[in-house]
Amino acid sequence: MLKINATRLQQHFELMSLIGKIGETGTCRPTMTSLEKDAFNLAASWMKEAGMTTRIDHFGNLIGRLEGTDPALPVLMMGSHLDSQPYGGRFDGVAGVLCAIEVVTTLTENNIKPKRSIEVISFADEEGWRFNKGLFGSRGILGKLEAGELQRTDKDGITREQALRDFGCDPEKFKESEYKPGSIFCFLELHIEQGPVLDIAHKPVGVVSGISGPLWLTVKLKGMAGHAGSVPMPLRKDALLGAAEITVALHEIATQVPGNPTVGTVGTMNVFPASRNIIAEEVTFTIDLRDIDLERRNRYEKQLMERIEAITKKHGLTYSISEDTNSAPRYCADWMKAIIQEQCTALGLEAPELMSGPFHDALTLSYACDYAMIFIRSKDGISHNPLEYSSYEDLALGTQVMYGTVLQILETK
Amino acid sequence: MLKINATRLQQHFELMSLIGKIGETGTCRPTMTSLEKDAFNLAASWMKEAGMTTRIDHFGNLIGRLEGTDPALPVLMMGSHLDSQPYGGRFDGVAGVLCAIEVVTTLTENNIKPKRSIEVISFADEEGWRFNKGLFGSRGILGKLEAGELQRTDKDGITREQALRDFGCDPEKFKESEYKPGSIFCFLELHIEQGPVLDIAHKPVGVVSGISGPLWLTVKLKGMAGHAGSVPMPLRKDALLGAAEITVALHEIATQVPGNPTVGTVGTMNVFPASRNIIAEEVTFTIDLRDIDLERRNRYEKQLMERIEAITKKHGLTYSISEDTNSAPRYCADWMKAIIQEQCTALGLEAPELMSGPFHDALTLSYACDYAMIFIRSKDGISHNPLEYSSYEDLALGTQVMYGTVLQILETK
Repeated sequence: MLKINATRLQQHFELMSLIGKIGETGTCRPTMTSLEKDAFNLAASWMKEAGMTTRIDHFGNLIGRLEGTDPALPVLMMGSHLDSQPYGGRFDGVAGVLCAIEVVTTLTENNIKPKRSIEVISFADEEGWRFNKGLFGSRGILGKLEAGELQRTDKDGITREQALRDFGCDPEKFKESEYKPGSIFCFLELHIEQGPVLDIAHKPVGVVSGISGPLWLTVKLKGMAGHAGSVPMPLRKDALLGAAEITVALHEIATQVPGNPTVGTVGTMNVFPASRNIIAEEVTFTIDLRDIDLERRNRYEKQLMERIEAITKKHGLTYSISEDTNSAPRYCADWMKAIIQEQCTALGLEAPELMSGPFHDALTLSYACDYAMIFIRSKDGISHNPLEYSSYEDLALGTQVMYGTVLQILETK
Repeated sequence: MLKINATRLQQHFELMSLIGKIGETGTCRPTMTSLEKDAFNLAASWMKEAGMTTRIDHFGNLIGRLEGTDPALPVLMMGSHLDSQPYGGRFDGVAGVLCAIEVVTTLTENNIKPKRSIEVISFADEEGWRFNKGLFGSRGILGKLEAGELQRTDKDGITREQALRDFGCDPEKFKESEYKPGSIFCFLELHIEQGPVLDIAHKPVGVVSGISGPLWLTVKLKGMAGHAGSVPMPLRKDALLGAAEITVALHEIATQVPGNPTVGTVGTMNVFPASRNIIAEEVTFTIDLRDIDLERRNRYEKQLMERIEAITKKHGLTYSISEDTNSAPRYCADWMKAIIQEQCTALGLEAPELMSGPFHDALTLSYACDYAMIFIRSKDGISHNPLEYSSYEDLALGTQVMYGTVLQILETK
């Protein structure tokens, strides 16, 4: 049934997992290091076998290119990243690079010579933990780097600029590595889901509807400290009680329509003075609210603000809210989703449509071209952890879907 | 109207406040230091003016004694402490010592020679912060010290034993400083309220019903970490959401009967991994539940356990609870409260009865004799802070109530 070579694909995963291996199943492969260079060299060797030319650009991206018969046409781009979390797994990012290489290899093996050039990219520093800001390579090629990025340092005090130079890149020549507007026809990224939806639904492959934009708020509540034994309940201004009620309220708001993909999370809570017998005077906590539907997210944000207002008023608290991030959702192209679904159907797969909570390089690319994403089932939804696991059968199925999708795009667009 | 000398009393407060003065209105007078020794010397000089003999016992307590005409009778004891919080006020503890000295001074000035001896004690290390365990002097005289207490160290590594010896005490002679069972007839402690009840009721003086026993629990919830963007709400095991719901539940339980003195507090909350975009895997928080009615407190504890069980079940969390402290409430003697109320009425004061959430030396004494406490209004309920304030008018009224109470006890018991 499969045109792609599942055995070869698995071998590629297993070989790649040896670079930066930690423990039995973990990976630590920081961006712009000799480990990533080793991974690039290995991936480049497979790209070459697939008939691609390869290069590392000045942002530290590895780019393989299968020249089309009409090189002037905007490219069909696929890719993801080969850098990993510091205590990560074998599949996050890697899947999108290796499966794309497998797709091109299969095209070549079948003597398919596309008119449109195809590129497979392993983007530099998607993860972002080394310099505390990610999606570097994908933002780089689109001219979206920000002031001061090169002066960011890692924990050893090495600047991004130094790391780039050590990697063989030249920040003076960034412009040469940028893509001109209109030069990318579309972008296709296969990625592990990093969540439990497909696993629970017993579906190997999913079609992404879009990358949901997070709203990140930091809320600070101020009440009044007092002895936990001597201040009667009605006289209290308990900042931690207020924070708890807002946490519960966020959950109620995010779950008000069962089945909706809205997610709301309080993940941190800092209490002052944090003594067991003193009523909390000040509590600072974060809110993460995401939805693929921006209108709904905005509506829920408004509900949340009303709840915060009411809860703080009830408890005699003052509050301040800072907005740390406010990203709009980015939707996948309907025509690409339709092709992916057709390919799934052809394989007898029922592929749920689901949103992506996490960011991916595709988020950056969404501002330059149409894009789509194929999700592969993650065991127990675990990611950013050595326990991260997607089966080679699922990955092969996803790669076959991607192969069919690429073929159909090449034939029809 | 007043028999006591309000001007002298205020002078004593003002002089005492100079010892260990910080800022305009603050006090830092650690136990078993030269500052506390200075405070003892000053208080001892006033005790002597009142006709008392004075000594510092081997626990570091300052004891003034007005010998009765029948020295074999159990003593009427009054007192509190002259050590302060590190960033404390002028009244906490000090009030109970200076007002008691004023009572004895007034007795002497009025040529009253009681049959029963009267003692005024400034107890050593009530506050407990220097060696992280308080009520040292009051526990000492009742033979209630625990193993290892002398080896406790302060932040400079000085042991309690060394501090005692430096203060002129001899731990080998503790036995000599203990009080025999039955040797204390009753204990009377005047203290600032340290809470807002009297201030809000516009009452200068209150009668304490008892010292409520705290139940201290530490609750640990365990869920499952996951990406805040990719785990749908119904699939989450969010430990922080569980902790928030339990915090709200505790508040509901403690306030179920409006007006009851029950207090319930969550004052700390530690979150792991505490990242804004990761669902909390583990949350540990403390519960402080107090009530003057032990049966009710136990009933509320049971309700809380049922809520914890239900909330954790709902969110797929596991939990463990450790009981750190479980003190029973200690009630004031009805006959003593009745006398205090009579004295208040005689002065035209309406004195609310209220429980004491915080501990006092009286808690220790409650295991040796009948006891009562007189509370003085605290401005805005603030204590353990330089802003702590009780007016000299209120303190004079309370001292007059205490004087009348002592007279009535001496006459009738």
